[in-house]
Amino acid sequence: LRVLVVGATGVIGRAVVSALEGRHEVVPVSHRAGALTLDLADSASIGRLYEKVGAVDAVVCAAGGTRFRPFSELSEEDFRFSLMHKLLGQINLVRLGLRFVAVGGSFTLTSGTLSRRPSPGGAAVSVANAGVEAFVASAAIELPRGIRINAVSPGWVAETLKKLGHRPEGGTPAATVARAYVEAIEGETNGTVIEPGGA
Amino acid sequence: LRVLVVGATGVIGRAVVSALEGRHEVVPVSHRAGALTLDLADSASIGRLYEKVGAVDAVVCAAGGTRFRPFSELSEEDFRFSLMHKLLGQINLVRLGLRFVAVGGSFTLTSGTLSRRPSPGGAAVSVANAGVEAFVASAAIELPRGIRINAVSPGWVAETLKKLGHRPEGGTPAATVARAYVEAIEGETNGTVIEPGGA
Repeated sequence: LRVLVVGATGVIGRAVVSALEGRHEVVPVSHRAGALTLDLADSASIGRLYEKVGAVDAVVCAAGGTRFRPFSELSEEDFRFSLMHKLLGQINLVRLGLRFVAVGGSFTLTSGTLSRRPSPGGAAVSVANAGVEAFVASAAIELPRGIRINAVSPGWVAETLKKLGHRPEGGTPAATVARAYVEAIEGETNGTVIEPGGA
Repeated sequence: LRVLVVGATGVIGRAVVSALEGRHEVVPVSHRAGALTLDLADSASIGRLYEKVGAVDAVVCAAGGTRFRPFSELSEEDFRFSLMHKLLGQINLVRLGLRFVAVGGSFTLTSGTLSRRPSPGGAAVSVANAGVEAFVASAAIELPRGIRINAVSPGWVAETLKKLGHRPEGGTPAATVARAYVEAIEGETNGTVIEPGGA
């Protein structure tokens, strides 16, 4: 399959690319570096990306910024940023990509466990993640041509914890998270939220 | 209690005002008519409203526009409108109202059953509703001074069905829906989503 991977240089995106390579043709996209770049919050940028890439069988998104900070410090701009990047950005990636995805193809988006397990500082992230999951459930019943859509909802990734100076044992290895995306692409599920490591 | 009711002239809002009157002091707000008006999508308008109203014990929001149409016709603007009105509008009503709400006071927002039960045409509504519910769950663990926050998640309201030319039996009477808001204001629940009529 020809798989577009948005956010290919992030911790999860790199692991997804590794897990797909050899099995599929990967088209990597990142925010800044590489042949193909994308500003997920700008739908014109998404449109240009698809025109350049052309037909694909699957689209994976492991990108989408959010703002994590105490509720008393979360500004309107923090909520707006999180909604426009992680939520509306991924929605537009589906809306605008639909006509480029082959019959029986798929979209696999990224939410996160804060959608269902609130945590102090996480209000703007929770709202964006819950929106992504509701979008996936809703779009799944209307996408044409047998195209499927799912979300992977990762918790803390071990490699990210390590980078932040924490013990990595509390997280799920990126390779395990990546397998959830591969399952979504190669499997037959539609409208589901996959929690890697069965969290 | 002094209760600010945003959306006081809508089908649900009118029933909430009726259910509260006699028991509490109601301060009604609507989009266009009356002494107090509000554009929920404009945070400056929300700020001005609170400055005018002053201290309250509870804030109810039964307002927030969304766009319902087939997925293939839902534009970026439809999603943006739904996110900015029903979701970010209600978030800002909480953020900006917090300092006007008394110790032990409450916010009661409105989501809707499409958050959990997807329906064709409802993707933008589902996303906004799910965001509201995630916001309530998240904010509940961080609000100061014993202030509580809940959402009421109404399905179809009988009076609305009748107005649209359908049989009202499939819906919940507005008076029943209104009781859920009263329970949220007078009770002790926090961070919950109340489904009126137990749907």
